Amino acid sequence: MEAFSDGVIAILITIMVLELREPHGADFAALRHTFPSLLAYVLSFVNLGIYWMNHHHLVKTVRRYNGAMLWANLNLLFWLSLFPFATAWMSENGFATDTVATYGIVLAMAAAAFTILQTVIVRSYGADLSLKRALGRDLKAKLSLGGYLVSIPMAFAFRWVSIGIFIAVALTWLTPDRRLQGFLQSASVSDSQATRD
Amino acid sequence: MEAFSDGVIAILITIMVLELREPHGADFAALRHTFPSLLAYVLSFVNLGIYWMNHHHLVKTVRRYNGAMLWANLNLLFWLSLFPFATAWMSENGFATDTVATYGIVLAMAAAAFTILQTVIVRSYGADLSLKRALGRDLKAKLSLGGYLVSIPMAFAFRWVSIGIFIAVALTWLTPDRRLQGFLQSASVSDSQATRD
Amino acid sequence: MEAFSDGVIAILITIMVLELREPHGADFAALRHTFPSLLAYVLSFVNLGIYWMNHHHLVKTVRRYNGAMLWANLNLLFWLSLFPFATAWMSENGFATDTVATYGIVLAMAAAAFTILQTVIVRSYGADLSLKRALGRDLKAKLSLGGYLVSIPMAFAFRWVSIGIFIAVALTWLTPDRRLQGFLQSASVSDSQATRD
Amino acid sequence: MEAFSDGVIAILITIMVLELREPHGADFAALRHTFPSLLAYVLSFVNLGIYWMNHHHLVKTVRRYNGAMLWANLNLLFWLSLFPFATAWMSENGFATDTVATYGIVLAMAAAAFTILQTVIVRSYGADLSLKRALGRDLKAKLSLGGYLVSIPMAFAFRWVSIGIFIAVALTWLTPDRRLQGFLQSASVSDSQATRD
Repeated sequence: MEAFSDGVIAILITIMVLELREPHGADFAALRHTFPSLLAYVLSFVNLGIYWMNHHHLVKTVRRYNGAMLWANLNLLFWLSLFPFATAWMSENGFATDTVATYGIVLAMAAAAFTILQTVIVRSYGADLSLKRALGRDLKAKLSLGGYLVSIPMAFAFRWVSIGIFIAVALTWLTPDRRLQGFLQSASVSDSQATRD
Repeated sequence: MEAFSDGVIAILITIMVLELREPHGADFAALRHTFPSLLAYVLSFVNLGIYWMNHHHLVKTVRRYNGAMLWANLNLLFWLSLFPFATAWMSENGFATDTVATYGIVLAMAAAAFTILQTVIVRSYGADLSLKRALGRDLKAKLSLGGYLVSIPMAFAFRWVSIGIFIAVALTWLTPDRRLQGFLQSASVSDSQATRD
Repeated sequence: MEAFSDGVIAILITIMVLELREPHGADFAALRHTFPSLLAYVLSFVNLGIYWMNHHHLVKTVRRYNGAMLWANLNLLFWLSLFPFATAWMSENGFATDTVATYGIVLAMAAAAFTILQTVIVRSYGADLSLKRALGRDLKAKLSLGGYLVSIPMAFAFRWVSIGIFIAVALTWLTPDRRLQGFLQSASVSDSQATRD
Repeated sequence: MEAFSDGVIAILITIMVLELREPHGADFAALRHTFPSLLAYVLSFVNLGIYWMNHHHLVKTVRRYNGAMLWANLNLLFWLSLFPFATAWMSENGFATDTVATYGIVLAMAAAAFTILQTVIVRSYGADLSLKRALGRDLKAKLSLGGYLVSIPMAFAFRWVSIGIFIAVALTWLTPDRRLQGFLQSASVSDSQATRD
């Protein structure tokens, strides 16, 4: 599952560049018209990079997969696979209202899908309290999903605020999930302390 | 073989999104025209996801590959590789009769190719009765192939029935193959019981 | 090197399908116009499948890579990467003379690149006589390269003969390289017999 | 991280071929117009091949990843992902001044990103003096970055000199990084000599 998901995200992050149309002209003036596309590309590249890292850290904790996990994972990959489409539509239409809202919907669905995957994994490890605790207060994930949900209606009034939310959320994730990293490092310690804990 | 096949399926599931043309317009009305495409994309995404899971479970049982397996595998990948083409042709022509029949043909050929690969693998493990038994009554696979074969002529009379069949078959596969999973779990048990069995 | 090469070939075999343009029309009559493209696609799919298998069997024998091997490998991948381009150009122009010759040139260069890679690997294992012997009489590889070299000038006189050569060569490779498979199986035996051999 | 990066670079090196437009015509005269594109494709193919090798050798030395490394790595992949775009824009406009300068900028940013990644890795292994020493005098990397930086303004005066620089730099890298290879081989030796060193 890890290799397949890594593969899909690697392909998604790469094929987005195929959506970057070459400018119609050979000078910097022509290149300037590609600038909005390039910015949208950077945003989606960073977002997919964030999902790759968090996904990588999350599934590393899984030792046995069941059907529910596989489907929750495929659901996440589906929403991530719409990033290139949503990015291209938004950037080629000058960040028009409806396209920004659509981008926000795709981001929100992907964030929800990640939360679902996380929940499914935590439930399968019902007894594994330390993973639950490590993930329990994922305020950042909730704030991100909340931000995306706000950005959708916001796009119809102030679309640049929505875009600001997209950027702000991405910036808050620019460090990998320390909680999980910490959990993984303390896992061997916890295991040996299991009787005392 | 597993890594190569996983790679090909991961790429197929991802590049289908490249076939999703951005709508000609920047509002939701324009997006509505992409809806049939999006639905066809979801259907093919789920189908490829199903093939990935079943393929993954199947080849996990193989410890040594021979030429026949490699070619049966390449045959399956070939039919899967036509999914993006068949999906795009069907959705861009409003699910026209001939395009639906073609999609059914590709689905049927992929299902047959999977059955062939399974048969080749079972034959190579002639003595391994438990794998044979685990796969013996794969009623679901036979019903799927049968459904696809029915959907092809059906497309010329009631094409929505064919599309209904595609969706119904996909839904029946939304759980991974429990029989094989069960077999794998009991394999170590069987091994130790081999003399008594 | 193995994973990277497998990845590149998996991508090449898959993206070729992106070159299959959807027919301009929604009926089987329109599909018939895609038939030449589909046949060319099948031919290139099978050829890349053959390269994947032979490459897979070849690099499995390598335990340590050096710079020369890496570059010989990259050279092979370069020629393989021109398959989608050559296939699309040939099929979209109704197998015109020059396009068939170009396809033959790409096939010949890929076959030569494979021979170079093989030679570089054999030289690095100078003392490993059994690998050299196993590869020594690769008549099939020499005949393939010869066939491709003949097909290039032939395209200007009888282009269908050239296409026949492409198909005939592919058919001769439809079994994986038994010699290498045999070598790998006997490797442990040879190792223990090294002093007596 | 290694598998993900290898995957992204494998995809990049492969999808560039999708930018090779088939010539408008079925004869060699038409193919001649694709020649500049083909040459630019070869140059970028070789450059990505070089990055793959050096990246592969570099991350092989890493045993534990931290957040800084992951982001430095993603930064490198981002600049590499602009290669297909920059290559296509340059070659489709006959190597026009601004497009050559843009290609130089992308090359310079990628070279800088590689240096950053290397520095981050070296810093994380503060005590590991032998890796530092092995990388200390990477004159070649500094000359490459310098060459790219010179090529950018040069493009506005003598763009063929800039292209010459691109080719010359690529040629100097046509051997993998021997220093790191040497370091890896001597690592086990160093480890056992650590107390005496």
